[in-house]
Amino acid sequence: MEAMPRHDPRPTAPAPPGRSGRRGEGGPDVGRIETFSDGVVAIIITIMVLELHPPLAGGFERLWTLWPVFLAYVLSYAYIAIYWVNHHRLFSYARRVSNALIWANMALLFALSLVPFSTSYLGGRGFFREATILYLATMLLPAFAYSWLQAVIRRTGVQSEAAGLYHRATSRKGVFATIIYAAGIPLSFITPWLGIGAAALVAAFWVLPVGPLDRLFARRGGDPT
Amino acid sequence: MEAMPRHDPRPTAPAPPGRSGRRGEGGPDVGRIETFSDGVVAIIITIMVLELHPPLAGGFERLWTLWPVFLAYVLSYAYIAIYWVNHHRLFSYARRVSNALIWANMALLFALSLVPFSTSYLGGRGFFREATILYLATMLLPAFAYSWLQAVIRRTGVQSEAAGLYHRATSRKGVFATIIYAAGIPLSFITPWLGIGAAALVAAFWVLPVGPLDRLFARRGGDPT
Amino acid sequence: MEAMPRHDPRPTAPAPPGRSGRRGEGGPDVGRIETFSDGVVAIIITIMVLELHPPLAGGFERLWTLWPVFLAYVLSYAYIAIYWVNHHRLFSYARRVSNALIWANMALLFALSLVPFSTSYLGGRGFFREATILYLATMLLPAFAYSWLQAVIRRTGVQSEAAGLYHRATSRKGVFATIIYAAGIPLSFITPWLGIGAAALVAAFWVLPVGPLDRLFARRGGDPT
Amino acid sequence: MEAMPRHDPRPTAPAPPGRSGRRGEGGPDVGRIETFSDGVVAIIITIMVLELHPPLAGGFERLWTLWPVFLAYVLSYAYIAIYWVNHHRLFSYARRVSNALIWANMALLFALSLVPFSTSYLGGRGFFREATILYLATMLLPAFAYSWLQAVIRRTGVQSEAAGLYHRATSRKGVFATIIYAAGIPLSFITPWLGIGAAALVAAFWVLPVGPLDRLFARRGGDPT
Repeated sequence: MEAMPRHDPRPTAPAPPGRSGRRGEGGPDVGRIETFSDGVVAIIITIMVLELHPPLAGGFERLWTLWPVFLAYVLSYAYIAIYWVNHHRLFSYARRVSNALIWANMALLFALSLVPFSTSYLGGRGFFREATILYLATMLLPAFAYSWLQAVIRRTGVQSEAAGLYHRATSRKGVFATIIYAAGIPLSFITPWLGIGAAALVAAFWVLPVGPLDRLFARRGGDPT
Repeated sequence: MEAMPRHDPRPTAPAPPGRSGRRGEGGPDVGRIETFSDGVVAIIITIMVLELHPPLAGGFERLWTLWPVFLAYVLSYAYIAIYWVNHHRLFSYARRVSNALIWANMALLFALSLVPFSTSYLGGRGFFREATILYLATMLLPAFAYSWLQAVIRRTGVQSEAAGLYHRATSRKGVFATIIYAAGIPLSFITPWLGIGAAALVAAFWVLPVGPLDRLFARRGGDPT
Repeated sequence: MEAMPRHDPRPTAPAPPGRSGRRGEGGPDVGRIETFSDGVVAIIITIMVLELHPPLAGGFERLWTLWPVFLAYVLSYAYIAIYWVNHHRLFSYARRVSNALIWANMALLFALSLVPFSTSYLGGRGFFREATILYLATMLLPAFAYSWLQAVIRRTGVQSEAAGLYHRATSRKGVFATIIYAAGIPLSFITPWLGIGAAALVAAFWVLPVGPLDRLFARRGGDPT
Repeated sequence: MEAMPRHDPRPTAPAPPGRSGRRGEGGPDVGRIETFSDGVVAIIITIMVLELHPPLAGGFERLWTLWPVFLAYVLSYAYIAIYWVNHHRLFSYARRVSNALIWANMALLFALSLVPFSTSYLGGRGFFREATILYLATMLLPAFAYSWLQAVIRRTGVQSEAAGLYHRATSRKGVFATIIYAAGIPLSFITPWLGIGAAALVAAFWVLPVGPLDRLFARRGGDPT
């Protein structure tokens, strides 16, 4: 899928040092995809705060009514932040720009761009069952795009042993997170709070410092030591 | 048009490696135009999602009423994404900053900035005839600015044989896309869905993997093999 | 004003090639100020399009009522674009980050951030006298911040003969533009269209290709030839 | 906390010149964190201007009613700008990306993203007591995240004597600013203007040129001379 038109002039030789051959004969330019992705993610993560409308009437007790919107914002901020961090690490293994890399990345950004919508629905509807289910379903979409992106970079990016370990460990972590999100959907039929709990669990699992859980993932992949 | 004031100190000598001479005696700085364009395009592509207002009442059947807004968002997201990808490839052939390069690029960004407006009109009006026609007309504007931009880079950018092939093949593709958009306008008088179909066809044609169609474009230009 | 605390470790030695010493012992980092400015300007120039609210009722004649908002958008887009272009050129002469450089730049970005407000007022009020006067007054603010910024870069930036010519020619152009904006304010009391005309004249004067007018500015400064 | 999974390939060796090893074997990439932070801060600082809604009725006396919103915008713009400047200086001492660096930075961006909310509350409520207290409390949150970020960079970043002086002097300045913000909260019970005055004092103290106050901070830390 990432085959280029055969008249494409992009060389496969390694880029010169400095700006990774940004200028010149159409050299690989992974950096610009990163810059664009950073811009899109920065906007997605920030426009969610626009849903926090201050109450028109005074008094702190009115502010308190905003807690579902605020909680939805915190959850989604953590979610988008985790994706940015993983994107940042994954792209450090990318080597060349291909059609597949560009469109897998665009698909990921598209999926992430739906998060403000379902966050607004979740917060504005006060964690109703339908809102929670839509929210968890929206959380699943970026996972598929991310898997595609990782498959592309695994095939066309850095091919060292360290890269292989990285891809195996993070793929396992990603599958695990996806299963928890998916499990949250039926659990939301019992009570929406189980669905929200599933989303919070995944966020904690990625944000919290590396511990026994991470070592578990590393070991299962046959990481020596 | 891209002649600079004759007191301009920008050298024509190749930039030093590294940041392409970003610092120093007013060296060429194509990179900063890219960064700015990335920012503008990232905002354009993301603010369209703000039109997806979640319904105030609960229930999934209420969500379903959003489908025209969502479909308009998907179409426009693909449209802007395609322009970004093409811009990204085209600028890999740019070599020096000129007045014409800056203003052709500004014209392109201006034309693209109208897309959220006509997308909002299309989605909010449920694909009415007038909305579809305005949408397709807005899709035509960036094509003119892009042709200007490509003409500038063709004249002042990389002059290799590969660059020539790239410019010829993509220009043909661009003309083809423009004809389909323009054809969508009269077709919308029969039914708006023919207009929407034209827009979807162009999007598919750019996003889908390189196949026989691309080879056709390459061959017609005399590409050997 | 741009003196640094004397415990500041930033060296005055030239930065290493590549990213202009971005990493390391707190070296000068003009590039990051540019990136931040690009982001702010990209948002300012793009959020103005959010004022273009599509009409709720159908029919092209309803779209026509949007012309004042659209015209205000075009004028302000050109205005912000011109500032970005000038900022881009001016920063190619900057060499080191100082307190004055940072805060003059922040003042410029602040002044520019008011443009969407007065554009919205101008477009929404249909070019009423008060709206036109406020618009032109807002256009004057960035000029003062820009003069401060240019003064800082003139003193601390590249000191070549070409840089001197650049600063003299663009300062004259800036003073000329400022006079026309200021003249537009009393002219708006006759009819707002004279004020709008003044703003359009300045935009045309910066955007249009370099011609006799530019040569005039270059010559008056004693540019040889 | 910032320990990486032990299969992480990021080398501790200094990055090659140029883009600081951005490409390649997952080298350190502090630059991309800066780019992302710049994007988020640029959006935060700019969306606040969207609260400045032009009055629907004409006449300059109607504009005058906007002064609380405008004053709140100026204060918050200065506040965010100061954080950007400090972030910019602090990151010039960062050397390698760690989990702690990423998440301390994300926490800072999250805390800053709440500023538009409390600014909107402050301006829209006309500096009522509750709004002023919430505003000052929001101003305190980023200080904690920033302290965490600085602690991480102090431990893992550049270890020169100049870096040590920088960290000591700015930490003292930060503690001082935090105390004034915290003091503004009880003072707001007397009159909200004492709280606003506290916020303005801190802004002036960071923005104004380096003077006797800065020298005071430098000296107390045992800075020779």
